[in-house]
Amino acid sequence: MTTTLPPIPSGETSDDAANAANATGPIAADGGGEPTESHLYVADESGIDVPALTRVLDGRWADMRAWGREIGGDPAFARPLDISMADHRELTLDRLKELAKRNWSAQMLPEHLGGTNNPGGNIAAFEELVAADPSLQIKAGVQFGLFASAILHLGTAEHHRRWLGDTMSVDLPGAFAMTEIGHGSDVSAVGTTATYDEETEEFVIHTPFRAATKEFLGNAALHGEAAVVFAQLITKGVNHGVHCFFVPIRKDGELLPGISSEDDGEKGGLNGIDNGRLAFNKVRIPRTNLLNRYGDVAADGTYSSDIASPGRRFFTMLTTLVQGRVSLAGAGVTAAELALGIAITYGTQRRQFADFTAINEVVLLDYQLHQKRLFPLLARTYASAFAQEDLLGAFHEVFSGEGDTEENRIDLETMAAALKPSATWLALDTIQACREACGGAGYMAENRLVGLHQDIDVYTTFEGDNHVLLQLVGKRLLGEYAKSMKSMDTGDVTKFIASRAETISARHTPWRRLLQSASDLGSVRRTAASLRDPALQVELISARAETLVEELSLALRQANSMSKQDATALVNSHQAELIDTAKAHVDLILLTAFNNGLTKVEDDETRAVLVRLRDLFALTTIEKNLAWYLMNGQLSLGRARTLNDYIARLLTKIRPHALDLVAAFGYNQDHWRAPISSGIERIRQEEAAEYYRHLRASNDGPIDEKILHRRQREQRNAESKSAG
Amino acid sequence: MTTTLPPIPSGETSDDAANAANATGPIAADGGGEPTESHLYVADESGIDVPALTRVLDGRWADMRAWGREIGGDPAFARPLDISMADHRELTLDRLKELAKRNWSAQMLPEHLGGTNNPGGNIAAFEELVAADPSLQIKAGVQFGLFASAILHLGTAEHHRRWLGDTMSVDLPGAFAMTEIGHGSDVSAVGTTATYDEETEEFVIHTPFRAATKEFLGNAALHGEAAVVFAQLITKGVNHGVHCFFVPIRKDGELLPGISSEDDGEKGGLNGIDNGRLAFNKVRIPRTNLLNRYGDVAADGTYSSDIASPGRRFFTMLTTLVQGRVSLAGAGVTAAELALGIAITYGTQRRQFADFTAINEVVLLDYQLHQKRLFPLLARTYASAFAQEDLLGAFHEVFSGEGDTEENRIDLETMAAALKPSATWLALDTIQACREACGGAGYMAENRLVGLHQDIDVYTTFEGDNHVLLQLVGKRLLGEYAKSMKSMDTGDVTKFIASRAETISARHTPWRRLLQSASDLGSVRRTAASLRDPALQVELISARAETLVEELSLALRQANSMSKQDATALVNSHQAELIDTAKAHVDLILLTAFNNGLTKVEDDETRAVLVRLRDLFALTTIEKNLAWYLMNGQLSLGRARTLNDYIARLLTKIRPHALDLVAAFGYNQDHWRAPISSGIERIRQEEAAEYYRHLRASNDGPIDEKILHRRQREQRNAESKSAG
Repeated sequence: MTTTLPPIPSGETSDDAANAANATGPIAADGGGEPTESHLYVADESGIDVPALTRVLDGRWADMRAWGREIGGDPAFARPLDISMADHRELTLDRLKELAKRNWSAQMLPEHLGGTNNPGGNIAAFEELVAADPSLQIKAGVQFGLFASAILHLGTAEHHRRWLGDTMSVDLPGAFAMTEIGHGSDVSAVGTTATYDEETEEFVIHTPFRAATKEFLGNAALHGEAAVVFAQLITKGVNHGVHCFFVPIRKDGELLPGISSEDDGEKGGLNGIDNGRLAFNKVRIPRTNLLNRYGDVAADGTYSSDIASPGRRFFTMLTTLVQGRVSLAGAGVTAAELALGIAITYGTQRRQFADFTAINEVVLLDYQLHQKRLFPLLARTYASAFAQEDLLGAFHEVFSGEGDTEENRIDLETMAAALKPSATWLALDTIQACREACGGAGYMAENRLVGLHQDIDVYTTFEGDNHVLLQLVGKRLLGEYAKSMKSMDTGDVTKFIASRAETISARHTPWRRLLQSASDLGSVRRTAASLRDPALQVELISARAETLVEELSLALRQANSMSKQDATALVNSHQAELIDTAKAHVDLILLTAFNNGLTKVEDDETRAVLVRLRDLFALTTIEKNLAWYLMNGQLSLGRARTLNDYIARLLTKIRPHALDLVAAFGYNQDHWRAPISSGIERIRQEEAAEYYRHLRASNDGPIDEKILHRRQREQRNAESKSAG
Repeated sequence: MTTTLPPIPSGETSDDAANAANATGPIAADGGGEPTESHLYVADESGIDVPALTRVLDGRWADMRAWGREIGGDPAFARPLDISMADHRELTLDRLKELAKRNWSAQMLPEHLGGTNNPGGNIAAFEELVAADPSLQIKAGVQFGLFASAILHLGTAEHHRRWLGDTMSVDLPGAFAMTEIGHGSDVSAVGTTATYDEETEEFVIHTPFRAATKEFLGNAALHGEAAVVFAQLITKGVNHGVHCFFVPIRKDGELLPGISSEDDGEKGGLNGIDNGRLAFNKVRIPRTNLLNRYGDVAADGTYSSDIASPGRRFFTMLTTLVQGRVSLAGAGVTAAELALGIAITYGTQRRQFADFTAINEVVLLDYQLHQKRLFPLLARTYASAFAQEDLLGAFHEVFSGEGDTEENRIDLETMAAALKPSATWLALDTIQACREACGGAGYMAENRLVGLHQDIDVYTTFEGDNHVLLQLVGKRLLGEYAKSMKSMDTGDVTKFIASRAETISARHTPWRRLLQSASDLGSVRRTAASLRDPALQVELISARAETLVEELSLALRQANSMSKQDATALVNSHQAELIDTAKAHVDLILLTAFNNGLTKVEDDETRAVLVRLRDLFALTTIEKNLAWYLMNGQLSLGRARTLNDYIARLLTKIRPHALDLVAAFGYNQDHWRAPISSGIERIRQEEAAEYYRHLRASNDGPIDEKILHRRQREQRNAESKSAG
């Protein structure tokens, strides 16, 4: 399996980066400099090599991550507390300009445009901005990842020459005007029109009705001076579908004629970004403002495109924007890592309720319940971090030009559509679990968790609504299945699986590799001795992923012979199963990524701990779908009943390594910036314990009424005895 | 079963209240006045009598709900957008004073103190304040529900005379100083001391170490002029445990000598409240400032109490504060109802993706997935609303004096500990599902959902952390089981169940009634024809609730014969199961409440719809634990496989009634205040549809490139034919 893995990075760059990120350890020097182990922290027989594990997690673009992490930990970029929306917006613009001065995102450009042609590394750095302020991250995402990327990927040389420089320096802040009030997920149906006028050689950009107003656009309410506008291109009476146009919208802060804008005002989070609406009243732009890489209009109005099919052309244009999904998936992983770092560290210091001695109190993380609330999320976060590295690799392959094939683009699109929902939901679930696990302290803004939730919340529905994306994944899986089925007896599932494995083995991108890995293992023993057998785990999780596709295909088989209305109704009645199918494949992607990640861990003791974490991921994933496994005869009742005990034992075994596991994410106090995990809680607890120790030792301390009662009883008993 | 139900309220008051709340219907008059049905809304054969259903839901205190709902819909109390924390705090104080002018919460006082002795009605009104601004609700909760309640319930006549008037008028804003930095859930361990000084006849209130600082107190940072402080009462060298003291903290806005305060600053929500910390440096207060209902200190320092056991005394004092949990449970239900109202209404108007005609677009709520995301939450919200009415009844019984027995107090405490976690988590889950179901629009603060999430978030961890409360419930269940087991062979489970049913049948409070109902039904047919059989549903859900208790008891049986250390470890290793056990009982409470609620619905057609909703609640609850049912042989594989289809069919059947079901909650545009559900979306959609209808009808409209291609192909074919 190792031959298909991306090369393990070596050399000084990534080592240094990892070391630098861990130099201060989980507690910053000014937090006391001591190690952060809990008082009940019991060192296990094996220990984690934290810097080495960080190197593995940081992966191929460790240098870019280190750079992003430096900014993420710089107070100059930290999410402000108790700030007005207006001030936060200005602050965020200023910070974005500061990032631009440091050549932020220039790495995404090809060499001839002043970049390093390092799209994967660019996203790796971007992911780290969550630690600074998600508002800054998304403001940068709008400016570089969307606005500049549209010019770069949908425009041609002249566009690059005219606008890219000012865009990258943020001298030209821009909006990405795709979504409309009436159409978010269904981009092909946007109402904005761009009608070509042969006489003036101009496009007329127009908002024909209220619902066609562009909506939720960062930079639209205040800062944007131009927008890349997605509109139906109409020339010579023909609508050639959605294309992208460069439209100036403001000059010196004033809206240009025909442009109107409304402010979206306060949002659930990300209030450092000036989201707003844009409408166009017959706004004229030169013909050459059409970003014409995939479709052009000649001066006489003749339309031309290298891609004959309008559907394929539209898909191609949209694919260039997959960067947003890839980077949000990574941002979700970062957010989950930060939240776990804060909550798990606090959990090893915070004490509540006396232990069996009735003197000491128990640290929260020693409670089974606390472990059960946090460790499965920690395990899934590890799986997601490994999967994100694979996704970045797939993205880099296409966008660096190393392997820009249509097949790779489709794979990348599918993988991003699978991992963006998974990682952003994981982030929200994890942040919320961490917030509640920290009690009232978790609700204080200074402890970061609530702000993270507020900001990350929208990551689940923008850049592709999570449920819509999972439907794309589900449909892709059905399509692959249908292709495989064409040449065989529909009843012969065994034959199908073999055929599928064969097809898949000829491919070589990560998406396909993971299916391959699954198939390779798919034939192994159902009689494995233990649920901790990794082959059995893969078999169970891949069996579910495959069976759900097959069952759904079967259920929808009649759709082809139905009226369109009936077929639509049939598909709708299985929509929830389509989502389940996609989610089952996400689980398989994550498990495969975790297993691949394990092969990169060289230190035996570190790997032993990670194997337990992988087991916890696999077994809690199986547990979530346990009813399915039982109903489908994939697990016996006897084996199913052992699951709970396995999981309980894994929690206990992971407990001593919890601090190391979050330390390995590479964040420290500079990134967490949460007083509750700074060590102050431990100092307070020690001070309290010292107070009580002193009271007990002295004769001045009050005696507890309960103890007094007991002594009085004893005395009475003694007296009555001596009297009798 | 009907004989044990609370009387169905009748008479004009509640009728009028329900009618008033529904006067404008789900769409306010200024929203167009039309009914809000979707374009695909298909009227079912049966219809819901919305005002009658509202009357059932509003229950015994419909008049008080109507009053609270009026304030909840009054713009003068509406949660502000984009406001600074400082301004929001002042606004909230002003609004609290305005509420006081209207005699808010005076109903909780007995007649001789100027009230109406209507504690249940008081909470019913309180629950409605969520619709106004949760900050106002919790500020009111701090002032009346905690500060005034402590004076009322823990103090005696002289305290009432001195402080209650100013407290109820908010001339004396107060803090409730129980939680400390170091101790939230474990109140008995607070560090603050109140040491009696015989010479001056004063208590000395002192914060002996940093962790003993009082924390998260509303009114502490700015507005509070006094605090009720929970501290260890020490006199004559004996610590008599936690008691409550009235301590002045500010005069004319300045902190008094020895008092220090810190501001908690920005929080995840509820930023209209000035939460903060209080510390005491040997602050002296008169002896008579001890709220001495349950324990007193004479001038010479002699301690006395009617309750000999310190443990029971502490429990009795804390029980007086159960009001907070009861009211937060209700607030959670209100929040879920509001969120569902907004999202379901929007879901019937918002369209996305073309339907089978390729012309019209589908409203979101016609997608199965959308139904599956929202309807099970709607069903659980109905169950919770019915259960809340029972809880209010139990609360009223104790606090009005109608039935203030220790047994009833313990039952009330347990029921509140069960329903507060359930309702507040339901609220958070529902709000988040609704927010995501509304896409980007759901993230805009003006559409309410994000603000609700931010504010309600902390309801899950304050006034008793949800997980800690569920452990209380679990332990209570184990205790009841142990009591029943004492007199019998431990292996004889059948005998136990019989004995238990017998014990239970002698009781009469809601908590016990529900167990009784379960036992009554527990013997019915396992061979029921259908999972929609209500007796089978009750049997399945009660079987799980009972079996989990029994299994856990069995697993912990050895604890008594172990060392304290081993016993603690054993209990800890089953902590997650303890929580599962408590949650299973919550499910049973909710199902029983839903079934009882159904008997109050007189209109057959309304009841028919609610029966489906109850089925959905029961079946999705069983589905969540399906693996358990299979592993425990409670459901056959065959029956389990039918569950998914049942649920899918229920979704379809509930769909036509979704708007009526949220309308019956009694909220309208005044309460929702969410532009997305105001009807504006439908108007925009119609405008867009009209635009396209016009385009299709005219000859001016551009032709789609895809259609053009098809026509060209057809023309070429025709030409080649005619040429051939």
